[in-house]
Amino acid sequence: MAFDKEMLGLRTATPSDMRLACRAGEWTNVTAGLCGPYAQANLAILPADWAFDFLRFCQANPKPCPVLEVTNMGDPLLHRIAPGADLRTDLPRYRVYRYGELVDEVLDIKELWQADLVGFLIGCSFSFEAELLAANVPVRHIELGTNVPMYRTNIACQSAGRFKGPMVVSMRPMLARQAIQAVEVTSRLRAVHGAPVHLGDPSLIGIKDLTKPDYGDPVPLYTGEIPVFWACGVTPQAAALASKPPLMITHAPGHMLVTDIRNEDLLKDW
Amino acid sequence: MAFDKEMLGLRTATPSDMRLACRAGEWTNVTAGLCGPYAQANLAILPADWAFDFLRFCQANPKPCPVLEVTNMGDPLLHRIAPGADLRTDLPRYRVYRYGELVDEVLDIKELWQADLVGFLIGCSFSFEAELLAANVPVRHIELGTNVPMYRTNIACQSAGRFKGPMVVSMRPMLARQAIQAVEVTSRLRAVHGAPVHLGDPSLIGIKDLTKPDYGDPVPLYTGEIPVFWACGVTPQAAALASKPPLMITHAPGHMLVTDIRNEDLLKDW
Repeated sequence: MAFDKEMLGLRTATPSDMRLACRAGEWTNVTAGLCGPYAQANLAILPADWAFDFLRFCQANPKPCPVLEVTNMGDPLLHRIAPGADLRTDLPRYRVYRYGELVDEVLDIKELWQADLVGFLIGCSFSFEAELLAANVPVRHIELGTNVPMYRTNIACQSAGRFKGPMVVSMRPMLARQAIQAVEVTSRLRAVHGAPVHLGDPSLIGIKDLTKPDYGDPVPLYTGEIPVFWACGVTPQAAALASKPPLMITHAPGHMLVTDIRNEDLLKDW
Repeated sequence: MAFDKEMLGLRTATPSDMRLACRAGEWTNVTAGLCGPYAQANLAILPADWAFDFLRFCQANPKPCPVLEVTNMGDPLLHRIAPGADLRTDLPRYRVYRYGELVDEVLDIKELWQADLVGFLIGCSFSFEAELLAANVPVRHIELGTNVPMYRTNIACQSAGRFKGPMVVSMRPMLARQAIQAVEVTSRLRAVHGAPVHLGDPSLIGIKDLTKPDYGDPVPLYTGEIPVFWACGVTPQAAALASKPPLMITHAPGHMLVTDIRNEDLLKDW
């Protein structure tokens, strides 16, 4: 999936511009590389009955699920990381899971909103890519204008109440010395997945074929490069499949909420 | 409150020994300085109806409330930070709050346990004191064998649902150069309150008189020393007063759960 040329304008758009473009249906594509200095966020929306188990799941699995904000029940508006953002419209694309099955992918969820829904915004690896680029570490899927490749692994998340599932990881190919730099850079960024969870042989974490990601697009490894794997905010979607809540709405992988928080703020207490 | 001489033996006791001593009613005193390399934890127990709001409160206030483990509803046993520990008996002393009032202080809560209770274990500043001592930063209340002084501040926590309240801080006096070292040491320890929230003039955070802590014991400041303040895991108790849940059971300030996790493990992802 290549970006259309509209992306060149949006790369420097403000977060508010981006969210309004989503709300108006003018941007329906992935958000990798857009609004560079601003953090992006994964989304999970659940009925209140499932919300406590899910927040426990996030607490027990902070690398894949670093929580940035939790909404008030029934309130689709954010108040902290993107004040005024509307979870029903301000992401480019959503997925709808019912009883553990992906049943739909839609551009807004206005018709699906319910008074008992709670939204969870979770840190995203796109936030650390700007830091990697600043350290001269390549980010292949940005170079190619595609979505990041993501894989289900055999790493079990800690279960919490009814929530369980495998960890999903994102992958970036790089040279060994760049992988070391990448560990140094991302280990400081705990609010956006922190240090990698694996590097090298994909089969050791249950990934059979790097050319066939479970989410996103494949990217090539060049000579001398190794794959480096980070815990990914798509993990809640794998948990949705395993845990079967009656309803769970998420972003479509790679189609994130762009927040008003700068990536550098995630280094601090905010 | 001075420690009895039994403490000298327990300073090197295992966490399991300590918990069994509490269970048997043989240790009912504060735990500062005990089981040096092992992390200690603050406790908050709430009915399930209040559990989600409380976990949201912790998520929104990670400096005072870094969550280490959440129990399954109705299960008084821990499974992660101290497998097999019993929340009803294995702390030296508990406080019982009903509708926002402190109504009792007890040595166990066997009679109070209910099928709808959920326990929250929260990181404790005692964990970083071993690191401070290792960096030659003095810890006055350990030198004196007393409980750490704690103060309610005018720093408002982020509210979450029905939970709100002021931040409580612990205070350690030290020289300016030691305060700088202390920031360096504790900023790495986010699971146990992280870097200080203030240093110097106590009135700037609403503390009128350092000699009259709201919890724990006062300690003297020596010539040239400034007070350094860390977010404290007693904050949920101040929130209990402000938020008035029908029942909230906590540890008595300074009377912590000793866990099986080493302080150094809190630096890693665990």
